Amino acid sequence: MRIYDIIDKKRHAFSLTDEEINFVITSYMKGESKDYQISALLMAICINSMDESETNALTRAMVNSGEVLDLSPLGNTTVDKHSTGGIGDKTTLIVAPIASSLGCTVAKMSGRGLGFTGGTVDKLESINSFKTELSIDEFFEQAKDIGIVVIGQSADLTPADKKLYALRDVTATIDSIPLIASSIMSKKIASGSKSIILDVKFGSGAFMKTSEDAEKLAEAMIKIGKDFGRNVTAVITDMNAPLGTCVGNALEVWEAIEVLSGRGEENLVKLCKTVSACMVSSALNLDYNTAQKMVSDAIYSGKALDKFYEWIEKQGGDVSKIKDSSLLLNAKFKREIYAKESGYIYRIDAQKIGTASMILGAGRTKKEDNIDHLAGIILSKSVGNYVQRGDALATMYTSNEDLLDDASLVFEEAISYSEDAPKKSELIYKIIK
Amino acid sequence: MRIYDIIDKKRHAFSLTDEEINFVITSYMKGESKDYQISALLMAICINSMDESETNALTRAMVNSGEVLDLSPLGNTTVDKHSTGGIGDKTTLIVAPIASSLGCTVAKMSGRGLGFTGGTVDKLESINSFKTELSIDEFFEQAKDIGIVVIGQSADLTPADKKLYALRDVTATIDSIPLIASSIMSKKIASGSKSIILDVKFGSGAFMKTSEDAEKLAEAMIKIGKDFGRNVTAVITDMNAPLGTCVGNALEVWEAIEVLSGRGEENLVKLCKTVSACMVSSALNLDYNTAQKMVSDAIYSGKALDKFYEWIEKQGGDVSKIKDSSLLLNAKFKREIYAKESGYIYRIDAQKIGTASMILGAGRTKKEDNIDHLAGIILSKSVGNYVQRGDALATMYTSNEDLLDDASLVFEEAISYSEDAPKKSELIYKIIK
Repeated sequence: MRIYDIIDKKRHAFSLTDEEINFVITSYMKGESKDYQISALLMAICINSMDESETNALTRAMVNSGEVLDLSPLGNTTVDKHSTGGIGDKTTLIVAPIASSLGCTVAKMSGRGLGFTGGTVDKLESINSFKTELSIDEFFEQAKDIGIVVIGQSADLTPADKKLYALRDVTATIDSIPLIASSIMSKKIASGSKSIILDVKFGSGAFMKTSEDAEKLAEAMIKIGKDFGRNVTAVITDMNAPLGTCVGNALEVWEAIEVLSGRGEENLVKLCKTVSACMVSSALNLDYNTAQKMVSDAIYSGKALDKFYEWIEKQGGDVSKIKDSSLLLNAKFKREIYAKESGYIYRIDAQKIGTASMILGAGRTKKEDNIDHLAGIILSKSVGNYVQRGDALATMYTSNEDLLDDASLVFEEAISYSEDAPKKSELIYKIIK
Repeated sequence: MRIYDIIDKKRHAFSLTDEEINFVITSYMKGESKDYQISALLMAICINSMDESETNALTRAMVNSGEVLDLSPLGNTTVDKHSTGGIGDKTTLIVAPIASSLGCTVAKMSGRGLGFTGGTVDKLESINSFKTELSIDEFFEQAKDIGIVVIGQSADLTPADKKLYALRDVTATIDSIPLIASSIMSKKIASGSKSIILDVKFGSGAFMKTSEDAEKLAEAMIKIGKDFGRNVTAVITDMNAPLGTCVGNALEVWEAIEVLSGRGEENLVKLCKTVSACMVSSALNLDYNTAQKMVSDAIYSGKALDKFYEWIEKQGGDVSKIKDSSLLLNAKFKREIYAKESGYIYRIDAQKIGTASMILGAGRTKKEDNIDHLAGIILSKSVGNYVQRGDALATMYTSNEDLLDDASLVFEEAISYSEDAPKKSELIYKIIK
């Protein structure tokens, strides 16, 4: 088998066999197939696509390229959740304790963020003395003990996906439904949970620009899940603005506590309840309406928040420092931003809010960069609100006063005004499984 | 300008601007754009193609990547000839002296061969003491003096084409009309001749499988030529069998002398006369019929053969060793191959004949390999001939007896027999300019 012939076959839009796809991944990992050959193949896949059987084979080859977590000792209620990305997406911090408080097991390895804002692990590390590095034994023990554990990725899961993704990132071959689907699903399969809930976002800031493409991506991922015997549910959501009001690590922990306390911004609450209900329904095999009621109850009874504190404490976090939530909003420098015009807020560009937040110190541009955990932005207005010139739009938080001017400029570019109220779009577009 | 955006643009089938294409080539030559990025772009070009303006821009960028020969001191009658490849293609040895004997100036840098059989330079080097390395001054002097000079490529012409071609060769991105057209034409433009005759072959052994594709390639190259102010004529030829009867370096010199002496195999003679007439017509600005008559006269009067000997002698070749042409057929070991069946010869697979010839020592597998100049094959039958089992089909020549068995096996695979005579195809399909 020669990589040349495989590239040539896909260049002419033929389907590759399981053996061919396996050869691509194994020869690439061994260094026998070269970056320049794989990038040519990836481009051919982007343009000529892959069918279901090819996509499954690619996922399997990437899963097999590294370690695979076997969560079966934890029973059948293990559930994982993935979002296709978004600015200010703190849903894991909220839905994990909700689902766990209702009997699901959430045993999750999570990533650090690069660009814009931190990942879930960065957000958790904004809690004083929280440990994100546990041994695999400690990981399993905590999952059995309290039904929730989230750590930084320690096992060498799907190294082929990492290598492919790095190559796609510099060769304009990210944007392909079968490649995105197999990349996401290989990580989720290798992470071992029986049920998987996918938050597939569409909109200007997301990979998928339209609801149709998001639905196609969701369907591709559901098919892969079936092939591996996992229960996959996809929530398709409209993501044209940041999720919730907070962007920044400690600020998002604060906001998570708000939602778990029964408060919080409408869209964020709705998304978290929907994703949690999908997790509970799938992992405990209950109908969706029952799961929904259980989720509401978990929040309003305080059960979910208790689970959150139990979790944080178990991983060494100083709960006293977050129970007084004002301590999370404690950055040395703050600045309010005011509306430059009167009118309806027509659009809040999520990418630009992310960039402004990164400038303030909340994100990394390089892996080695340190994060300013207290930095970020809290929006006080959302899309559709009417504002008068001079009304407060947001507050910026940072430990470095010098960054405020630059961040303000970027923030202001993110806001568009209009004379007429913008059409309200439904956050949850569809749930499919 | 970023290479990422350029790849992404072509991935989505948009046309690239001159500036973008220039950036691709200059950043690639500087090492700023990487092999894996360029191969992704090449694949996008293979699938989504390039328009005329992009193809011209790519050609120009490749021409500008290295030295450019200025042949204008030699006047307006300079003419070059290129063939898109073929087994046993010794036409340059024949058409160059014919055209030169009629007043054209043939000042040509030519390559060595890799795979199958040698290039023109290898064929010339099979003539005792022939010098293929001249200084650029000697090159111009000889061209002025006798109107014909062929040397190995000494100037650093189109290095970007070499780098791109090497990458295309391992990434299944050879097969693209705009990429082939710009690769060939960049070399021809940089080589400086005012008139360019292209022998564009189609058939199972050629880049272009059909006459339609060959015509498209020819048209693309003619358009590039126009853009650079060159006169381009394309002869589209059906190349499903080796050209002539000889494959191998000294053997092909022998066959060239046969044709220049008014003998030779029908198809080879026809092709050489056509290409020569195109050269004369284009370089001397004469109508094609007049040029055709001049070519026939040059052969039958002996003028062309005299020019050949003059040329060989001028470059140091020992003419006494080729005037007795039997000395060129002087390999230490010979073996006749006999027909295994009775029937019409339905097909002679040119690639396989080339491989058999290479096994005998006539070609290189690596750049450093030495060529056995006397090795090769002379066919005694051609496609459409009826043979009885046991009739002689060919004679193999080599300096190493051990190679004969392997070469015979490959040779035999090259021959297909049939009960009915195969349809005769016309060698010259079309001439366009």
